[in-house]
Amino acid sequence: MPRQPTTPGQARTLSARIARGDVLCGKCPSRAILRHVTSQWGVLVFLVLLRGTHRFSEIRRRIGGVSEKMLAQTLRTLERDGFVERHAHPVVPPHVDYDLTPLGREAGEHVRTLVDWIEGNLGAIAGASGAAPDEAEHEADGADGQPPAPAAGPAA
Amino acid sequence: MPRQPTTPGQARTLSARIARGDVLCGKCPSRAILRHVTSQWGVLVFLVLLRGTHRFSEIRRRIGGVSEKMLAQTLRTLERDGFVERHAHPVVPPHVDYDLTPLGREAGEHVRTLVDWIEGNLGAIAGASGAAPDEAEHEADGADGQPPAPAAGPAA
Repeated sequence: MPRQPTTPGQARTLSARIARGDVLCGKCPSRAILRHVTSQWGVLVFLVLLRGTHRFSEIRRRIGGVSEKMLAQTLRTLERDGFVERHAHPVVPPHVDYDLTPLGREAGEHVRTLVDWIEGNLGAIAGASGAAPDEAEHEADGADGQPPAPAAGPAA
Repeated sequence: MPRQPTTPGQARTLSARIARGDVLCGKCPSRAILRHVTSQWGVLVFLVLLRGTHRFSEIRRRIGGVSEKMLAQTLRTLERDGFVERHAHPVVPPHVDYDLTPLGREAGEHVRTLVDWIEGNLGAIAGASGAAPDEAEHEADGADGQPPAPAAGPAA
């Protein structure tokens, strides 16, 4: 359903849009949420947590190449959005694990569908054969300012 | 509907993974393709081109905040992957427009589904209320040199 990219009277327009976002509008909050959900590590966190509750170290082990800093930052962002739940169990030693909220699970299912399509059609995607991990991270870097992951990350 | 992928020239060690990509593996080319499809501007280019053929200036006008440089780079990447087709018409003045390939349309439909969900559930997403556009652009790449209003200038 095509929407007008913008309309005059920003404040009103914006508030009106929050009811139904428009990511093509640079000022719509949906643009920020889209960035969180489709961020380099955000997508992969959704994939891992769709499999169930995980500890930080377990998530990190499953996601090849993610740094502790970037994973922590990604989890905080998704928790703030209400997609991820952080459970700190009052035990010694401390035990913290992460899970998707019902909202996060809904978003995650759509992420999963997109990723499934890419994984399943990789052979048909021209760029795949030439897309070295380095090049990929480079472009990711240029595209959204996220630091490249180590080329030789641990396999999931 | 996964196709049977063929992977000539790929390292044997990767061939197994390429037959069915695994984005959780830092070395799998699917990670690079995922980055291209979900990049800040890549997602929005898919949304615009799903509506049909567009000239560069038309795409840029529809996507609030994209710079000429980032849009050009994004289109080149998606063209290399085989998602976008660039048509240069041999006329004077030069006329170039862009379209999705059948593969790009398939990918775009999955992107569209995810974005539709985000736009439609914005009110339920906790982070949305606090996600200022500035913050959004910051997290993106700060390449917001433009108002969300249609950029000045007629379709090239």
